[in-house]
Amino acid sequence: MRDQFHEDLDTISDQLVELTRLAGSAISRATTALLDADVHLAESVIEADRKLDDIRIELDELSIDLLARQQPVATDLRIVVTAMHMSSDLERMGDLARHVAKVARLRTPDSAVPPELRSHILQMGQVAEAIVAKCGSIIASKDVAAAIALEKDDDQMDELHRQLFAALLDEDTSWPRSSILDLTLVGRYYERFADHAVSVARRVIYLVTGEYDQVVDHEEEEDAQEVAALEHGTPATS
Amino acid sequence: MRDQFHEDLDTISDQLVELTRLAGSAISRATTALLDADVHLAESVIEADRKLDDIRIELDELSIDLLARQQPVATDLRIVVTAMHMSSDLERMGDLARHVAKVARLRTPDSAVPPELRSHILQMGQVAEAIVAKCGSIIASKDVAAAIALEKDDDQMDELHRQLFAALLDEDTSWPRSSILDLTLVGRYYERFADHAVSVARRVIYLVTGEYDQVVDHEEEEDAQEVAALEHGTPATS
Repeated sequence: MRDQFHEDLDTISDQLVELTRLAGSAISRATTALLDADVHLAESVIEADRKLDDIRIELDELSIDLLARQQPVATDLRIVVTAMHMSSDLERMGDLARHVAKVARLRTPDSAVPPELRSHILQMGQVAEAIVAKCGSIIASKDVAAAIALEKDDDQMDELHRQLFAALLDEDTSWPRSSILDLTLVGRYYERFADHAVSVARRVIYLVTGEYDQVVDHEEEEDAQEVAALEHGTPATS
Repeated sequence: MRDQFHEDLDTISDQLVELTRLAGSAISRATTALLDADVHLAESVIEADRKLDDIRIELDELSIDLLARQQPVATDLRIVVTAMHMSSDLERMGDLARHVAKVARLRTPDSAVPPELRSHILQMGQVAEAIVAKCGSIIASKDVAAAIALEKDDDQMDELHRQLFAALLDEDTSWPRSSILDLTLVGRYYERFADHAVSVARRVIYLVTGEYDQVVDHEEEEDAQEVAALEHGTPATS
């Protein structure tokens, strides 16, 4: 029985890593679709998101089935429950990539991104892609040090988010309102994508150390940088 | 043992209803703080959100403890797992109310809302308050018809969101960039607040009917209306 249980746990872990791979591919292709105004690429991202949704449902069903069959307790139980929370974060990351792709599709044949902001949006996409790739490794390795280090990537995303807002707030630019709204939302999507990755990393820390506060504390930081972004890039204060 | 189990389930249900009450109070006061530029009220909303976070942690711990002690299966197991998902949605609704309050605090002594949009934002706040109140009744009553009917309130929020974006996209208005960004995000916060309420209602439907697809399908609609909003209020197409 225990062997079957640990085989199931391995399946769950593999599925979570697969979700990070799919979310990484989605945010990478969504960023390209946004910058290149590639409607077909955007549509492929939107279509592919169903795969993340399906895996998330499978994962929840497998977890519930596993709880019913194996009746795990203590750490084993926490692993299964935490996996369900992680799959929720990862599915949401896929949704956020799909949101970016929908903005891309909406503005074709034009790009939603003004030329002056192209390299900035590309950077946000690259940080998002890097953070979710690390997320996959952290889930597979249960590496607490790497999970803690992920905050650094999130700080980088927060800084990029601040800079984007500072640019959007510049009254001297003559971008159309649609670009201002698109990029305000797109900036938020990338920033939330990174937040969910940090949330997954914190759940790994929780699993290994048993410290739960880690998981929720992040909300405050998220707010702090959100406000800082709106404050045209002044330092974050919660 | 079963009595203890059902007492625990009642406690979980009561806590979920309490979360809807706190989230309702938060979004109501956040809306007032935003419209009246009331910094003290905004700070009280921001501070009070910790209470939602604490209850959510307690709920997760109680649920895990209950799974370990009672080893529920079948429907009982699904109730506990679903409650954990619901508490996550409700905590997030509290976060979104806090985001609105932080925008309010940021712009005081001015209001972040231009006079022309005050009544519109008030309406979004009132719909949000109504939807979370219904959410609490639905959790308490397990009323599937009421849960399905909640979509109507969400449609109303989506329409208000579309109208807000159409107003923000009007190049003839002379609002500062900061108002455009603030209201783009605030509109998104209200719309997401309603989406999470619908997600909670769909989980109740899932518990009663066992139909899981309901829970995930909503993402597509959410996207459809998001895009429609960006399209200046044309009908939603997914």
